[in-house]
Amino acid sequence: MSDSGSSAASKGGTAGLKPHVVIVGAGFGGLAAARGLGGADFPVTVIDRRNYHLFVPLLYQVATAALSPADIAQPIRRLLARYRNVEVVLGEVTGVDAGGRTVKLADGTVVSYDRLILAPGSAYNYFGHEDWAAAAPGPRSFADARRIRERLLLAFERAEQSPDPEEQRALLTTIIVGGGPTGVEMAGSVAELARYSFRRDFRHIDPAKAHILLVEAGPRILPTFPEDLANHAHKALQRLGVTVLTGTSVERIAPGEMTLGGRTEKAGCIVWGAGVRALPAGRWLGVETDRAGRIAVGPDLAVRGLKDVYVIGDTAMATGRDGAALPALAQVAHQQGRFLGRALRRNMEQGTPIPPFRFRNRGNTAIVGRNSAIFDFGRLHLTGRIGWLLWAIVHIYLLTGFDKRLLVATQWLWRYLTYQTGARLIIGDEEETGSDRLSGPVRS
Amino acid sequence: MSDSGSSAASKGGTAGLKPHVVIVGAGFGGLAAARGLGGADFPVTVIDRRNYHLFVPLLYQVATAALSPADIAQPIRRLLARYRNVEVVLGEVTGVDAGGRTVKLADGTVVSYDRLILAPGSAYNYFGHEDWAAAAPGPRSFADARRIRERLLLAFERAEQSPDPEEQRALLTTIIVGGGPTGVEMAGSVAELARYSFRRDFRHIDPAKAHILLVEAGPRILPTFPEDLANHAHKALQRLGVTVLTGTSVERIAPGEMTLGGRTEKAGCIVWGAGVRALPAGRWLGVETDRAGRIAVGPDLAVRGLKDVYVIGDTAMATGRDGAALPALAQVAHQQGRFLGRALRRNMEQGTPIPPFRFRNRGNTAIVGRNSAIFDFGRLHLTGRIGWLLWAIVHIYLLTGFDKRLLVATQWLWRYLTYQTGARLIIGDEEETGSDRLSGPVRS
Repeated sequence: MSDSGSSAASKGGTAGLKPHVVIVGAGFGGLAAARGLGGADFPVTVIDRRNYHLFVPLLYQVATAALSPADIAQPIRRLLARYRNVEVVLGEVTGVDAGGRTVKLADGTVVSYDRLILAPGSAYNYFGHEDWAAAAPGPRSFADARRIRERLLLAFERAEQSPDPEEQRALLTTIIVGGGPTGVEMAGSVAELARYSFRRDFRHIDPAKAHILLVEAGPRILPTFPEDLANHAHKALQRLGVTVLTGTSVERIAPGEMTLGGRTEKAGCIVWGAGVRALPAGRWLGVETDRAGRIAVGPDLAVRGLKDVYVIGDTAMATGRDGAALPALAQVAHQQGRFLGRALRRNMEQGTPIPPFRFRNRGNTAIVGRNSAIFDFGRLHLTGRIGWLLWAIVHIYLLTGFDKRLLVATQWLWRYLTYQTGARLIIGDEEETGSDRLSGPVRS
Repeated sequence: MSDSGSSAASKGGTAGLKPHVVIVGAGFGGLAAARGLGGADFPVTVIDRRNYHLFVPLLYQVATAALSPADIAQPIRRLLARYRNVEVVLGEVTGVDAGGRTVKLADGTVVSYDRLILAPGSAYNYFGHEDWAAAAPGPRSFADARRIRERLLLAFERAEQSPDPEEQRALLTTIIVGGGPTGVEMAGSVAELARYSFRRDFRHIDPAKAHILLVEAGPRILPTFPEDLANHAHKALQRLGVTVLTGTSVERIAPGEMTLGGRTEKAGCIVWGAGVRALPAGRWLGVETDRAGRIAVGPDLAVRGLKDVYVIGDTAMATGRDGAALPALAQVAHQQGRFLGRALRRNMEQGTPIPPFRFRNRGNTAIVGRNSAIFDFGRLHLTGRIGWLLWAIVHIYLLTGFDKRLLVATQWLWRYLTYQTGARLIIGDEEETGSDRLSGPVRS
């Protein structure tokens, strides 16, 4: 594998006859860019450290045992198979040489490019407390989602077996940090799991009495939404039994406990959902970033001062028509990717200059639970059952692949009718092949 | 959690007024036994180290990226929620004191019983070469299935990037050990993945040229099936491009390579499916076992020489009417569990003695691939498309839960129509929260 770049590298680079576009990351932005460049008469290489495109907005449902990973992910290869000019490489980018026009991968491969699109996405921002990550994972990757699901389910199992009411109370407490859409969705989803799915399943605890705390440092939850919608969500959460603590900052997180607003709470599960930071494209390029790790780009999404390097999605610090920074949203990344892919193709094939990117807000949404979601379309605000129905329809529509849509729709309908979630599995990391953790090898 | 057994233990035991039945393991046998005892007027405790009941016969489809874990697993709690006399405990049994009538768990909990049903199941048998397990996992647990899936998918990814034809050939080789139903099903499934699902997805390799070797030490594959059916499966595998090596024994397995029949083959993925050994109930009880770790039981499924201890499923060495040992099959475990649960209930409530267990063979089946399965109903032998249709219908019928049936049927139909499998995800164990494996923490 030492020089495995031969295939990709030999294709492009300044040495080749045709220019070569490299896209790093196959999230919403990178995938849309690749599709925009699909079918062009020059080669495109998409590099991602994962073999799948992940529908991140539904990851919280994997974390709360409602969906399976494969329901919201598709192999990148498969999604781009129809474009014969697009090649997919599974690899981890470790650096970019913007002068030499190369991307370096962890396995030593060097991939040459003529145009580079960076769309590496973002991770949760622990604001300098990276040591909190292990105690309070956020639903940002499948590994994290599985970890959250396991802690959540194990906490109820342990509470059921605990003879100590104090310990039971602690285990039945779930704390969610961050009152943005992810935090709200996690809180609502955990509350429904405890109140509906777990009903009748336990003998020694009442899962409906589980404590779910949603902690937000700011004065209200869902700060990016209009106040009436945020209030609606706040009340809906309270009806589900969620305690919403606004104006409360987190002072310390340790395994199973947390200090917030001066007091310490024990918890069976702590979930992080408080803001993101861009993945390290800034360091790869050696350019300045803002506090969230984002790189400032021009209206053509190019990095200022570098030639032929573009940044899109959560890593880009782009501004909207009003001069405000565009938020780290899937729809922003998707629109940027589609725009840049198409514009770059016209630019490379016909010499058309890249026009300025314009973001069109398609509406903002967050879901609290069954029959309860909020939608902000600017003038039009939707809530309740209509918001919820629209939320479900939009998310099924946005999923890639007819089979995934059918699977997710089936599971949501089933859940709606029966109040049951379908993926209540505790699957540990540490199990070993052929071993029985029960008691070691059998004598033979 | 030190004395968390108080809830379970206090319920039963000789100290209680009502007798207490403890069931260890919620596989096909244990679950059926619990259902047979559901609704009785005495308490029943089901102990399992996992929180879910797993439909093991379809695990190979999780390993070959066709299904998700949650499609073939249900929370044990949920499956038994309707029986108010049945309690479920998540715990690892480490020993049994048959004299004192207690079961000991790994966390120190001691659970008393009046009647004990042991149904711990089985693991793959490496016949003294337990060190092969890491290099050649078998599809017996979700962790193993995920490991196989990852190796399989990663091998193709690496082959795509490799500039060395020798290395490509090695990576595109999959070796499956054992010509029983699991081996046949794995081989067929891997062949279909390579030939159908991967078609068009790669640029530098032809996945259809993947080498799939099925290795069987005996003179023919599927030794438990009639010869005509085994021959049919053998030919169907060859048509799919699988090389079937009978009379070939495995001499050595190391990561990525294997010595068989005197020569060494390199492989991108090695899968084990060669026989099972019972989990360690024999050691818990301190009784003799056969070479596969099974405990001899009488016609009432009780362990000879012990009072009120029953063993069912893969751990029981029970004999059929013809005096031959019953095979380690789901249908045997299920029938034994249902029989014992009902008989024990009549015995405890009315004093009726436990009659001898009689196994009724419902037919044996193995699937090679699309439109190709074999069915042995004794006199009636089915093959080809009819066998395949029946196989699919029977397996969907046997799945627990309407939602799972719908999900699996949907995915199979989708796969049948499009040749695409839905779970081609490489999800590693080692990913960490908030970390970006790409390049360490972002400067902030």
